Amino acid sequence: MSQPALQVWIEFASTYSHVAAQRVEEVARDAGVALEWRPFLLGPIFQKQGWNDSPFNLYPVKGAYMWRDMERLCAKHGIPLRRPSRFPRNGLLAARVATAAAAEPWLGAFVRGVYLANFAEDEEIAEPECVARVLAASGGEAPEHWLARAASPEIKQRLRDRTDEAIALGVFGAPTFVARGELFWGNDRMEDAMEWCRS
Amino acid sequence: MSQPALQVWIEFASTYSHVAAQRVEEVARDAGVALEWRPFLLGPIFQKQGWNDSPFNLYPVKGAYMWRDMERLCAKHGIPLRRPSRFPRNGLLAARVATAAAAEPWLGAFVRGVYLANFAEDEEIAEPECVARVLAASGGEAPEHWLARAASPEIKQRLRDRTDEAIALGVFGAPTFVARGELFWGNDRMEDAMEWCRS
Repeated sequence: MSQPALQVWIEFASTYSHVAAQRVEEVARDAGVALEWRPFLLGPIFQKQGWNDSPFNLYPVKGAYMWRDMERLCAKHGIPLRRPSRFPRNGLLAARVATAAAAEPWLGAFVRGVYLANFAEDEEIAEPECVARVLAASGGEAPEHWLARAASPEIKQRLRDRTDEAIALGVFGAPTFVARGELFWGNDRMEDAMEWCRS
Repeated sequence: MSQPALQVWIEFASTYSHVAAQRVEEVARDAGVALEWRPFLLGPIFQKQGWNDSPFNLYPVKGAYMWRDMERLCAKHGIPLRRPSRFPRNGLLAARVATAAAAEPWLGAFVRGVYLANFAEDEEIAEPECVARVLAASGGEAPEHWLARAASPEIKQRLRDRTDEAIALGVFGAPTFVARGELFWGNDRMEDAMEWCRS
């Protein structure tokens, strides 16, 4: 029986997803695990919990810790980080593009590029110009094609369905790794998730 | 310059503190790091955030994940776990005893014993009989002496001061490791905290 792919559920506004996104392809390669990106939106999930903002903004003491923890974590892994002037940023457009590009070989580079734009280059990832730049730099041909695809009713619906699927799986934060219905929440659980996938 | 001790801030109702408490003495010994237990209460801190219950109860999806994650984590580390019939349990009495016993050589055994009572033996750690049994099993002589000390105004005030100190440090959850004012939140950060302590 072939081993299942590890699903990587990410939200482009999520800080710890930045760390996970920069690391996960290399960790998966070393572990011999296949990956499937699952871009989704945390906003609707947070709203169900009564939150209309990031919990890191709603609970400033936890937020202050998170930024310090991110500094240490990114330094440890050699991942660029500059605290963005706006947090959280709206990742809807980037999530739609990543949904449309599910089968493209440059998807991983695009995902990493969006996180770098948000969390290392302080760019407005909600803006089409920014997403187009990342697309071009990732090897995605014809950015305008992907932006048009992202705006299609089909892709918009696919991302809504993805977010519903996340809720049905019990996903409540990002990143979340899923293998055979088993959830592993957070960058800290990446290695355990790989292990689970191989077992 | 001698290296600072690593403070281990724990709340007896906290699930991940159970994992940390069972592991931390061995990890610290291997790392050559001295420990200082810091029992405190999360209740007043949660109340400041508008929570009158554990966030794992207030957010059941997160709670369901936590119990599954605890199962995996305890299995991985060989730590006993049985989901308690009551959660969270009131750790006030045990925290007062641990505060009173700060200088006792059996404090670590007592801390581990209280967590095992709560999270492996499903016992009522709020009850003096339970705490007395754990005291006796930990090598603490004269449990009645320690229960009386725990009930003294001096120790009650010392624990309140501790919780105020936790708030001043920016502690928002348990376990939290603190070295030279640097916070590391969660059992997952134990090794990073040891490293920080030695650096």
